[in-house]
Amino acid sequence: MRAAAIQLNSTSDTDRNLRTADRLVRAAARDGAQLVVLPEKWTVLGTTADLRERAQPLDGPAVTWARDVARELGIDLIAGSIAERVAGRDKLANTSVHAGPDGEVRAVYRKLHLFDVEVDGTTYRESETEDPGDEIVLTTAADGTEVGMSICYDLRFCELYRALALRGARVLVIPSAFTLATTRDHWETLVRCRAIENACFVIAANQIGEHPPHHRSGGRSMIVDPWGVVLATAPDTETHVIADLDFATQDRVRAQLPALANRRPEVYA
Amino acid sequence: MRAAAIQLNSTSDTDRNLRTADRLVRAAARDGAQLVVLPEKWTVLGTTADLRERAQPLDGPAVTWARDVARELGIDLIAGSIAERVAGRDKLANTSVHAGPDGEVRAVYRKLHLFDVEVDGTTYRESETEDPGDEIVLTTAADGTEVGMSICYDLRFCELYRALALRGARVLVIPSAFTLATTRDHWETLVRCRAIENACFVIAANQIGEHPPHHRSGGRSMIVDPWGVVLATAPDTETHVIADLDFATQDRVRAQLPALANRRPEVYA
Repeated sequence: MRAAAIQLNSTSDTDRNLRTADRLVRAAARDGAQLVVLPEKWTVLGTTADLRERAQPLDGPAVTWARDVARELGIDLIAGSIAERVAGRDKLANTSVHAGPDGEVRAVYRKLHLFDVEVDGTTYRESETEDPGDEIVLTTAADGTEVGMSICYDLRFCELYRALALRGARVLVIPSAFTLATTRDHWETLVRCRAIENACFVIAANQIGEHPPHHRSGGRSMIVDPWGVVLATAPDTETHVIADLDFATQDRVRAQLPALANRRPEVYA
Repeated sequence: MRAAAIQLNSTSDTDRNLRTADRLVRAAARDGAQLVVLPEKWTVLGTTADLRERAQPLDGPAVTWARDVARELGIDLIAGSIAERVAGRDKLANTSVHAGPDGEVRAVYRKLHLFDVEVDGTTYRESETEDPGDEIVLTTAADGTEVGMSICYDLRFCELYRALALRGARVLVIPSAFTLATTRDHWETLVRCRAIENACFVIAANQIGEHPPHHRSGGRSMIVDPWGVVLATAPDTETHVIADLDFATQDRVRAQLPALANRRPEVYA
């Protein structure tokens, strides 16, 4: 299976974001990608007011575009995450949708771990605007590959990826908007660790550059194999990266270094 | 607290290994180290026959030396692991002992995850010679610092380190004999990830070089801070590395990026 990670510099201009996403998803499909991953909040990054204003329900234009382009191109599209307007709720959700090559929504994942942190002098309180999800979501690509879903800050929580791997995930997707500082200090280490410890492919699609009012994302979107080899890394532009996921290699890694089988759950409890 | 990781090239010559350990532990203490960590199987690395022959009970010469030198130097010594001869059992254990500055054994940890893998063309079947432990072990240094114990292959199991951190560990120790190939491909990534995701200091003491009959360890013993910064790395010799563990820095990291507090255990279950 050929996979792609799309790296974007999303802003509060949702129309521009959507045009850029459309251009890069088409470029990835032209390069043969069957599984394409967009970054976190690819529809809108900006102030809290921007997010509230540009939030959409799952039958809004962003997910409708994702379903249409997935069907037109015949791909599995993990539409990063959008700021989702949820019926009957005041707060938004941070929601990733898997659109299959038939144009149907195959899975909906809402970010489990909200970004309530202080990094590099900036305080983030995602929970003031968004409600967290409460479900681990594994989805199935058209070719039968099991794909574990997650978003950005989730990356710090090994429990989620372990649960996904134990439920059968072969590929983990991590649409992100990692800050510049945490991309420098943590991104590659955490992404590669999730691949190595779970013997999974990881497709980590990050945001890049400045997002008004004053946030900066670190890019370096990457695709990593189950041995931890970085198969592809994005330069500091809006772009896509491609890699071939060889599941026979994954089977060999899992047979030779069977860490998933060698767990001691009776001791951890 | 000043900490040290000792890097050794242990062989089947237990007397030589012990002399080298003695020399380097004294050097670390002269440099002011209060917490000193020896690598895995510092008493003996060799054939299965070597291991069986050189295995010792916990009141044997290796642990007796560890207690004596810890008392003499006034340090906390995590005596890596030894091949332990266990009364009433045919198989050995892979056992790490914490000797306090009073010369008392403060904790005994037996490796939970045995190395039954195939790496770089070599098959390892640690479980044919050794029985695994069945307990997670947190120990307390003389200054009150909580230290989480682990050994080598354990490094691949995030569950263990998470459990240690949730029980209060501020420092994680990982005496190891990581192979040359897995040191290149996985060592630093896994060590730094355990530090970052648990906001813990990590002291990772590895073996280096050839061990007859034909094993090779990868060295790069390191001390990492709770932000994932590599404070010290060993070159490819028998040596010790030193770093100061600043617990105020750790408190700041844990306050700013409270991943331990932001877990969703009700969802993982």
